[in-house]
Amino acid sequence: MPDQYVYFFGAGQTEGNGRMKDLLGGKGAGLAEMARIGVPVPPGFTITTEVCRLYLQGHSYPGGLHEQVASATARVEEATGKTFGGGDNPLLVSVRSGARFSMPGMMDTILNLGLNDATVASLATATENERFAWDSYRRFVQMYGDVVLGVPSTDFERLIDERKEARGVKEDTDLSADDLRELTGAFKTLVAERTGEPFPDDPQAQLWGAIEAVFRSWDTPRAKAYRKVNGISDDLGTAVNVCTMVFGNMGDDSATGVCFTRDPSTGERVFYGEFLVNAQGEDVVAGIRDPLPIARMAEVMPIAYQELLDAQEKLERHFRDAQDLEFTVERGHLFLLQTRSAKRTGRAAVRIAVEMVDEGLISIDEAVLRVAPEQLDQLLHPMLDPSADAKVLTTGLPASPGAASGKVVFNPDAAAERGAHEPVILVRRETSPEDFHGMVVARGILTCRGGMTSHAAVVARGMGKCCVAGAGAIEMDEARGRFSVGGETVSEGDWITLDGTTGRVILGQVPTVDPELTEPFMRLMEWADQFRTLKVRTNADTPADAAVARKFGAEGIGLCRTEHMFFEGDRIDAVREMILAGNPTGRAIAEARLLPMQRGDFEGIFRAMDGLPVTIRLLDPPLHEFLPQGDAEIKHLSRKTGIPTPQLRARVEAHHEANPMLGHRGCRLGITYPDITWMQAQAIFEAAVNVAAEGVSVCPEIMVPLVGTAEELKRQRRIVDEVAEEVFENAGRRVDYMVGTMIELPRAALTADEIAAEAQFFSFGTNDLTQTTFGLSRDDAGRFLPLYVEQGIIPHDPFQSLDIGGVGKLVEMACRLGRGVKEDLKLGICGEHGGDPKSIEFFHGAGLNYVSCSPYRVPIARLAAAHAALNDPRLKEPRMVQKREELAAAD
Amino acid sequence: MPDQYVYFFGAGQTEGNGRMKDLLGGKGAGLAEMARIGVPVPPGFTITTEVCRLYLQGHSYPGGLHEQVASATARVEEATGKTFGGGDNPLLVSVRSGARFSMPGMMDTILNLGLNDATVASLATATENERFAWDSYRRFVQMYGDVVLGVPSTDFERLIDERKEARGVKEDTDLSADDLRELTGAFKTLVAERTGEPFPDDPQAQLWGAIEAVFRSWDTPRAKAYRKVNGISDDLGTAVNVCTMVFGNMGDDSATGVCFTRDPSTGERVFYGEFLVNAQGEDVVAGIRDPLPIARMAEVMPIAYQELLDAQEKLERHFRDAQDLEFTVERGHLFLLQTRSAKRTGRAAVRIAVEMVDEGLISIDEAVLRVAPEQLDQLLHPMLDPSADAKVLTTGLPASPGAASGKVVFNPDAAAERGAHEPVILVRRETSPEDFHGMVVARGILTCRGGMTSHAAVVARGMGKCCVAGAGAIEMDEARGRFSVGGETVSEGDWITLDGTTGRVILGQVPTVDPELTEPFMRLMEWADQFRTLKVRTNADTPADAAVARKFGAEGIGLCRTEHMFFEGDRIDAVREMILAGNPTGRAIAEARLLPMQRGDFEGIFRAMDGLPVTIRLLDPPLHEFLPQGDAEIKHLSRKTGIPTPQLRARVEAHHEANPMLGHRGCRLGITYPDITWMQAQAIFEAAVNVAAEGVSVCPEIMVPLVGTAEELKRQRRIVDEVAEEVFENAGRRVDYMVGTMIELPRAALTADEIAAEAQFFSFGTNDLTQTTFGLSRDDAGRFLPLYVEQGIIPHDPFQSLDIGGVGKLVEMACRLGRGVKEDLKLGICGEHGGDPKSIEFFHGAGLNYVSCSPYRVPIARLAAAHAALNDPRLKEPRMVQKREELAAAD
Repeated sequence: MPDQYVYFFGAGQTEGNGRMKDLLGGKGAGLAEMARIGVPVPPGFTITTEVCRLYLQGHSYPGGLHEQVASATARVEEATGKTFGGGDNPLLVSVRSGARFSMPGMMDTILNLGLNDATVASLATATENERFAWDSYRRFVQMYGDVVLGVPSTDFERLIDERKEARGVKEDTDLSADDLRELTGAFKTLVAERTGEPFPDDPQAQLWGAIEAVFRSWDTPRAKAYRKVNGISDDLGTAVNVCTMVFGNMGDDSATGVCFTRDPSTGERVFYGEFLVNAQGEDVVAGIRDPLPIARMAEVMPIAYQELLDAQEKLERHFRDAQDLEFTVERGHLFLLQTRSAKRTGRAAVRIAVEMVDEGLISIDEAVLRVAPEQLDQLLHPMLDPSADAKVLTTGLPASPGAASGKVVFNPDAAAERGAHEPVILVRRETSPEDFHGMVVARGILTCRGGMTSHAAVVARGMGKCCVAGAGAIEMDEARGRFSVGGETVSEGDWITLDGTTGRVILGQVPTVDPELTEPFMRLMEWADQFRTLKVRTNADTPADAAVARKFGAEGIGLCRTEHMFFEGDRIDAVREMILAGNPTGRAIAEARLLPMQRGDFEGIFRAMDGLPVTIRLLDPPLHEFLPQGDAEIKHLSRKTGIPTPQLRARVEAHHEANPMLGHRGCRLGITYPDITWMQAQAIFEAAVNVAAEGVSVCPEIMVPLVGTAEELKRQRRIVDEVAEEVFENAGRRVDYMVGTMIELPRAALTADEIAAEAQFFSFGTNDLTQTTFGLSRDDAGRFLPLYVEQGIIPHDPFQSLDIGGVGKLVEMACRLGRGVKEDLKLGICGEHGGDPKSIEFFHGAGLNYVSCSPYRVPIARLAAAHAALNDPRLKEPRMVQKREELAAAD
Repeated sequence: MPDQYVYFFGAGQTEGNGRMKDLLGGKGAGLAEMARIGVPVPPGFTITTEVCRLYLQGHSYPGGLHEQVASATARVEEATGKTFGGGDNPLLVSVRSGARFSMPGMMDTILNLGLNDATVASLATATENERFAWDSYRRFVQMYGDVVLGVPSTDFERLIDERKEARGVKEDTDLSADDLRELTGAFKTLVAERTGEPFPDDPQAQLWGAIEAVFRSWDTPRAKAYRKVNGISDDLGTAVNVCTMVFGNMGDDSATGVCFTRDPSTGERVFYGEFLVNAQGEDVVAGIRDPLPIARMAEVMPIAYQELLDAQEKLERHFRDAQDLEFTVERGHLFLLQTRSAKRTGRAAVRIAVEMVDEGLISIDEAVLRVAPEQLDQLLHPMLDPSADAKVLTTGLPASPGAASGKVVFNPDAAAERGAHEPVILVRRETSPEDFHGMVVARGILTCRGGMTSHAAVVARGMGKCCVAGAGAIEMDEARGRFSVGGETVSEGDWITLDGTTGRVILGQVPTVDPELTEPFMRLMEWADQFRTLKVRTNADTPADAAVARKFGAEGIGLCRTEHMFFEGDRIDAVREMILAGNPTGRAIAEARLLPMQRGDFEGIFRAMDGLPVTIRLLDPPLHEFLPQGDAEIKHLSRKTGIPTPQLRARVEAHHEANPMLGHRGCRLGITYPDITWMQAQAIFEAAVNVAAEGVSVCPEIMVPLVGTAEELKRQRRIVDEVAEEVFENAGRRVDYMVGTMIELPRAALTADEIAAEAQFFSFGTNDLTQTTFGLSRDDAGRFLPLYVEQGIIPHDPFQSLDIGGVGKLVEMACRLGRGVKEDLKLGICGEHGGDPKSIEFFHGAGLNYVSCSPYRVPIARLAAAHAALNDPRLKEPRMVQKREELAAAD
């Protein structure tokens, strides 16, 4: 028996099912599953992703494919009573792509395939609607000409516009059947001119042309870009779904729509969506006509609406997840065209997951896994300050929640260019897949047309980006680089602010406030905490940051950068005096001024973190960073210190370094100026005993930066221990503390066994470790790193997500060597990778005790850590069994 | 039986032998061995190094030590017929340190110990020389006061000067016995005042004080500094040698001297040395009186001379190596006080080793191991150009060969300070151990006093540093920072040049010429080549360098830096145009101009290396390095290119990088500007086919720099292969070539298995690998690296000798991973460590195929590679047996 390349669905003879997503793609598997469970779908068949892979490898189809397609076509003809390419009741089909993962708008679709000059007449007769038949035909020629034959859609649109002008009408719907027939002829002439070949009249040729176009579209640049952004493998390929056409544009008893089983913005359990009467699906998605809320369908076509309600409930229960559905009502008959897991905002994802647990649909571990950690980002970022003075220009649809300020740009190229270095808001009449690269970099998206399910809205929600859609009051004047609304003119480069939660478009920049933590969010995080084994700390330099992080669930501070305190107020003067002193006495005087300030900082942080560990890093950056740069600053300091300007300038210049990243910094400062280490240790321990006297529970973990040899740590540690003893003796009180080191140089990782002998903990400084392992300055990488990512030389920016194959090897080596010497060595990570879910999964696997990240990423890290634990085969069995049993008991 | 801590020697009862250097130190073992084979030594005993270690750990002596010392003292009394601390014939002893390795001038010595007011009278009577007795006594008090009790020697000298002034005499020898008695009293008073304790009169107390001083002196800063420079472990400890005093200052039938069994400067087989009649040994070494050549002894005291001749021959044959001897003639009786392997210049080391093979004394493998690779440095560095116009100021003793130019400094601190950034010549009246830190950094040393065996001469030869000693015509005026000679005044900071081979002192800087390669050198190198398994290549960027290196035995080029060619002549203009073009077309035009120049360079190098492989590195440095820096240069380029100055400056500034070492360089240039790789590959292959047409045998190895991922190499290699095919096709001729990569980033080492799949060879770029592994910019390390070495935080500068524990781990990992994928992967190293003997030993062990170093270090690398092979236990047995058999057959 030959391999099966084609799977029929519909009419009680469905061959596939919902689990076959790899082979049939998401859409094909969804259609098969719907058909299998008795939801009405138009009969059709799916050509497998395997055929795509074979085709793209060798540009030919496997043997037997044509026969299988022919046989499946015959079954569709049988099921529908129609004939493909002829007869009184011609069978028209849609041809759509459908990959394993949903890629909205990225792949091309052909509708109404099977029409030609003969079948159009039959269609007109069968439907008793000549205008409909010719409108379908001209749409088909336009779409096929564009997608399969490469004639730009705008050229067809121009012919339509000319025709409308000639007829003196405004809307496409005002064109008559004759107009449409003539237009169809003109379209075919256009295609013949452009391609040098007549438009294919043979439906079989049309079908195979469309199939090939779907396969080819897998490799278009925009499809590749989408896959890259979303981390989808290029090797999967797409299936082709050939499906009986059903028509939502057969009159007022017909309709088409898109709906969600729950609100994809808020997650509320309401049936949600939009529909258009007498329209085809593309009209909804493209946002060309403003659709009606789905609830209105109850009035317009109550029977079909009830069927739809039943179907959506059945589908959600069946798939145990919120679904995104496409449907068409053809002359009163409902057909579901697609079901898939609904894209949703982070807020919605959380609420849906939590409520589905309450509804008994899913277990709590499933709920935790249902929310992608990155999705929480939207919930955690500041919102517009409601009390701020906001000049609202207009209000559109709240298409994707959150808030964003940026400078107005009017096209995706400008967005990509300016957005690289400043925040931009992309303002478009409506968006299309061609805009994707601009949408990726924009902070927010504003459109004048389209609804909640328009391209802009769907894509923005998928990216967790704020979007206001269909702000119809806006008058675009792209040619002059501006738009007007309510008598106000906004030009390219002007600041506007979008509130995607309310739909407001606001002039200028608006201050933001911290987000409210919802009850579903708090419950989900509690569940996540039950599963994870990694602790989550935060990087915080101030009591305020520490408090925010603690509210988000931080279990300590993993990185407190003492030098950030140096810049506050007039402290920088004392710091500069310390650096420029040139001798120990001068340094000592300046340090004596700094000591009480640092001590005060630490007291505040210890109080905010009462009961939790606080890791404090000793002075790290090259001293040059603290020195005045310009002439004015040098003169100012000269007046303050009494050092003559030329001398001061010379001393400042003497601190210049060729490669400051690899220079006199980190513990090298503490080695050459042991008094600085002494002063910082004194401030830490004095602060600790002071707050301990107030009853605060405190455990400082003192971290020595940029250690390359065990000897460096040993010497710095000796100073810290000496200072501790002295302070404890003076205070008559002791506190527990630890001394450890950053592992941020390859040499530290390579000699971690030696270093571990001197350390009570390691904290991986993956930012610097990435810089040194790659030999890559983060400040300079902009010249080539984007190109490297774009060309696939590296799979992602190693500063965003850990380079597991290189830097990760060093991390694993250091863990192994360190724990080999000291079994209970505490291991953490305080680089920015500590907030990146993929990296967190790796750190979990490497056996770290904690990750540390910025306050706003703490919940993301908690959830990512839970995912890592749930996906860890070493932990899975006993934990899952236990949790499932708890769930069962709670039911 | 208790542990033996004391070993007696002399009088046919010697307990130790020459192999016991670890326990008895070099001097003690030498004395024991001399006594054992019948060479006359004064009886005495050695306290072992073990006692030193125990003492320094616990500051107490092991049980039984006092008894063993007392017993050994009794044996000395018996052997000499003298009594320690009393009697008519009092026994006086010297107490000297003696470590495993010779550390000249570094450890302290006490002479004439045992004298007090009672024994001095007995001594006067026994020797019938009152003046001698009191002179010995005052010397003892001075020396003991200085070394053991810490009263500065200069304070004693002041008392002597006062006495001489009072007496109206000039020389010490003009002082009478009474003067000396009074001086001795004054010395003792001085000591009592300074220390608050009377000077010890009890000889036992004197002895134990001296022993303790020797042990303590092991840990003085200058001893530590010497050990650090010479790589001697701090853990060895020193022995104490207590030896019967013999006196070279008992009149004209007495003498003392230092001699060598062969000339330590040239290696010539002549008995060589100096002596002083009626003097003590310290007078020779300190250079205070000018000694006579040893041959003169044949006239002055012929019998003793003949005994000395016999002894030196016996000792050289016995130890099978050139010896450095100290002797004293006491009233006509010869005593050898010390024998040790003679320090020698590189030239002498080579000649002695080769001639000893000819004499049948040693085997060729021993000869190869006898010469330290670093010693060859002296033979290979340029010498003064004999034809150059040299204004000779004066001529001193040719104390250590070679030539050096530098600015005059008059004290070691100034030398250490200035010498860090410019060449200096240290000019001293005479040197002492306190000058050591200045001698280390000086290019050369000039003294006014002292002979060929003075401190300056011995230390300079040991360091392979040029030295002219005893230039007596020089009048020093240190106070005014200048010296005069022959009517010429030379001030601090003026340039002078020393010729250590002839003793000339020359005003100004003198050009140098290549050294002559001597016949013994050539023979030794041939032998070395028989043993080594590592190939030795050179780093050379020009045909001239390549030719020099080939003469020195280079077996190919391991690193040809193409960018160095970019700076020649007006090429830099084309390079700058290429960089600043801003678009591919502009770059292409500039590249077309560069192409023929690069091609011509490569042709020259290929011809010079006919038959040998040539590794060419593609463009590596950040482009900024090629751009004009100052305003004048920018204006010049603006005129040449027609780009307006402000625009040009902006373009230049746009290339500025925060950390250029980690920036847009190496293959990152080739990835972003593939046309540059294309141009360079074209120049290489066109040059290769051109010279191949001339009959030259050529094999370019094209090396891609700064690879961090396999994908980078793959893409660059694809370009190179494409260009090769195109060039070969056009030329109708093919040449063999390879494409490989530098391993100079930690990530490259960590992923060497992936990279090996794309590479035909690896070349370790250990300079950059050290920078990235340590996170240490070589340009900026000056602020802290010297301190790190000084304080022992790191054992040595990792840029000079490979950091085996860190960087070495990556090298080994890369070798293992690379060869795991590709068994025949060619491995080399082209960092500066390729010329460092210790690093070469490591590279041999890691299994590299070759090292590459600068042309003048090629012989050093060849010899170091031979040492590595000879010391490799994996290779030792069969090779040594074979070579020894060959030697036996040749005998």
